[in-house]
Amino acid sequence: MSATVKTKGYAAKDESGKLSPWEFERRPVGDDDILIDIKFASICHSDIHQEKGHWGEQQYPQVPGHEIVGVVAAVGKNVTKFKVGDRAGVGCMVDSCMECDHCKGGEEHYCENGATKMTYGMPSEAEPTGITQGGYSDKLVVRDHFAVHIPDHISFEEAAPLLCAGITTYSPLMKEQFEIGDKVGVAGIGGLGHMAVKLAVSKGAEVYAFTTSADKVEDIKSWGVKEVIVVDEELKALQKYAKTVDYMISTIPYEFNLGAYVACIKPGGTFTYVGMPKASSITVNNLALAMAKVNYNASLIGGIPETQEVVHYCADNGVLPQIEVINASEINDAWEKVVNKDARYRYVIDAATF
Amino acid sequence: MSATVKTKGYAAKDESGKLSPWEFERRPVGDDDILIDIKFASICHSDIHQEKGHWGEQQYPQVPGHEIVGVVAAVGKNVTKFKVGDRAGVGCMVDSCMECDHCKGGEEHYCENGATKMTYGMPSEAEPTGITQGGYSDKLVVRDHFAVHIPDHISFEEAAPLLCAGITTYSPLMKEQFEIGDKVGVAGIGGLGHMAVKLAVSKGAEVYAFTTSADKVEDIKSWGVKEVIVVDEELKALQKYAKTVDYMISTIPYEFNLGAYVACIKPGGTFTYVGMPKASSITVNNLALAMAKVNYNASLIGGIPETQEVVHYCADNGVLPQIEVINASEINDAWEKVVNKDARYRYVIDAATF
Ligand SMILES: [Zn+2]
Ligand SMILES: [Zn+2]
Ligand SMILES: [Zn+2]
Ligand SMILES: [Zn+2]
Repeated sequence: MSATVKTKGYAAKDESGKLSPWEFERRPVGDDDILIDIKFASICHSDIHQEKGHWGEQQYPQVPGHEIVGVVAAVGKNVTKFKVGDRAGVGCMVDSCMECDHCKGGEEHYCENGATKMTYGMPSEAEPTGITQGGYSDKLVVRDHFAVHIPDHISFEEAAPLLCAGITTYSPLMKEQFEIGDKVGVAGIGGLGHMAVKLAVSKGAEVYAFTTSADKVEDIKSWGVKEVIVVDEELKALQKYAKTVDYMISTIPYEFNLGAYVACIKPGGTFTYVGMPKASSITVNNLALAMAKVNYNASLIGGIPETQEVVHYCADNGVLPQIEVINASEINDAWEKVVNKDARYRYVIDAATF
Repeated sequence: MSATVKTKGYAAKDESGKLSPWEFERRPVGDDDILIDIKFASICHSDIHQEKGHWGEQQYPQVPGHEIVGVVAAVGKNVTKFKVGDRAGVGCMVDSCMECDHCKGGEEHYCENGATKMTYGMPSEAEPTGITQGGYSDKLVVRDHFAVHIPDHISFEEAAPLLCAGITTYSPLMKEQFEIGDKVGVAGIGGLGHMAVKLAVSKGAEVYAFTTSADKVEDIKSWGVKEVIVVDEELKALQKYAKTVDYMISTIPYEFNLGAYVACIKPGGTFTYVGMPKASSITVNNLALAMAKVNYNASLIGGIPETQEVVHYCADNGVLPQIEVINASEINDAWEKVVNKDARYRYVIDAATF
């Protein structure tokens, strides 16, 4: 097990963000590691932002992908969490210090020692390429703690999007502890947003879905929402919903008029921004926020125990993403569709085609 | 009482924000109005922002000032709230619809019909100059509801700053409902901030004051705070206070590194921004906010009943601003000192010198 792991994948080679086939080596399987034969990896808008350098300069070639599922093919000698043949999934992070209070408390994404390692693009001495490399590939070596079990009663394809889109929306929704019948708004109905809708409906909320895509209305209705609001460019459609919802979660992955959306929340309610806009920051108009009397907060992914929880919850309750399986050669097209809001709703790459 | 009211004051004549003497007319005292012989008006940073056009284009000449105290000199025939000779104060607004739920509920600053009239610079058909004119002057005509009583056991000079700095900090502090002994952070110790400190101390909080002015430390300590933190330009001093306070209120009147301050709040805590930055908006780094797990909200002034409440509270409990009385001819110098953070802590203009 001391040999590096030959891997085939698709990598961005520069800030154009065009992906092309690339063969590279992963680190040998260490004592606490597992090797996963990847079956599927799905496409998250974050992949695009990062590879195009929207969040800062990147080292290339870089393989994106943080919604990863597959079968355990080897385990290090200390590993008890998995055995060869187990179904496993990996999300947005692959390591952390595991000694600080946050790591021990299951919030490895908030590691106090700053040791959280994201799944791709982060400096890593252990990796032959010098950075972590993501899931658009056929093999992954990962510390056992950072993989979760995928139960048998959910397909690999449908499980993949839960590793980012699922946990990223589940975590703030659970924190909000809304009551059955509470009105929950979801703004932005893409990969993350459609999971937010399905999760909130499943948890008993009366869901108001805000989308700029009129042709998504029928889909969204079929997921059991109370209302779909098609938001026009001048945001006039929002005015009718002033002070309507108890809580709103936004998954809109670009800068938008926050004030117009928070005005739809009842005074004292909360607005949670998930996902990351292009510059990872947003301009908040204090006048609008003060007048709406709304609390604003942000949430990013979730810890490993909660990631396991959302996988179980979705598998047990049939809360499944809408997916379209594609081959590796179709990734660049799929990215364009994601950017143009044409995805319906998550592209899942068949890793056999790398 | 049908004659307009000749008034002497100091007005900005253009965006330079330089003030000079100006004589103008106020509207006649209407049936629901009172005429106030102004005794003192104090200087708020907002006056400077607005007259310099930081919040949008202004009509000039414009008389600023929204911390106003004086003696009632005449009352309209419907007025029962005041009689001639009463001590009265006026803050940031002078009118609203008084019919909507917010107005009737004492939140006239959030009038649902958008009829809230700020004390200066707002279009007003009734006013001979076409806009409302503020308190840097010797007389004011105002709808009775929008004046509050100033009890006898507080001086005019010390009461004036309560009409904006007092209510603006009191309102969010009261909403927070912190427990005695809770740790409250106050960022920015100027006119608003020093009132936030004194109010929070008076309400039983353990106060952490964050200032960039090392020479304010002794003053601030004398107000009973737990600790004063002198914040350096690199914000290193903040690191020691990570996750320390339960709640933080910021009165910093310009764009600042929000992330570094919210990191000082315990997870689940709240950060309230009061006052208005230069562009009335602030850039929020979602990564920093998500990692801190802090709720962000904004608050602006307060309603008339709560304004009356803070005046009584401060008078009854000796929660008094630190003031320096100046003559009208010193206003321009005082504004420069406010901008340069040299004010200690509120300049109060003697209206006899207009
Ligand atoms: Zn993602
Ligand atoms: Zn850690
Ligand atoms: Zn003010
Ligand atoms: Zn009103």
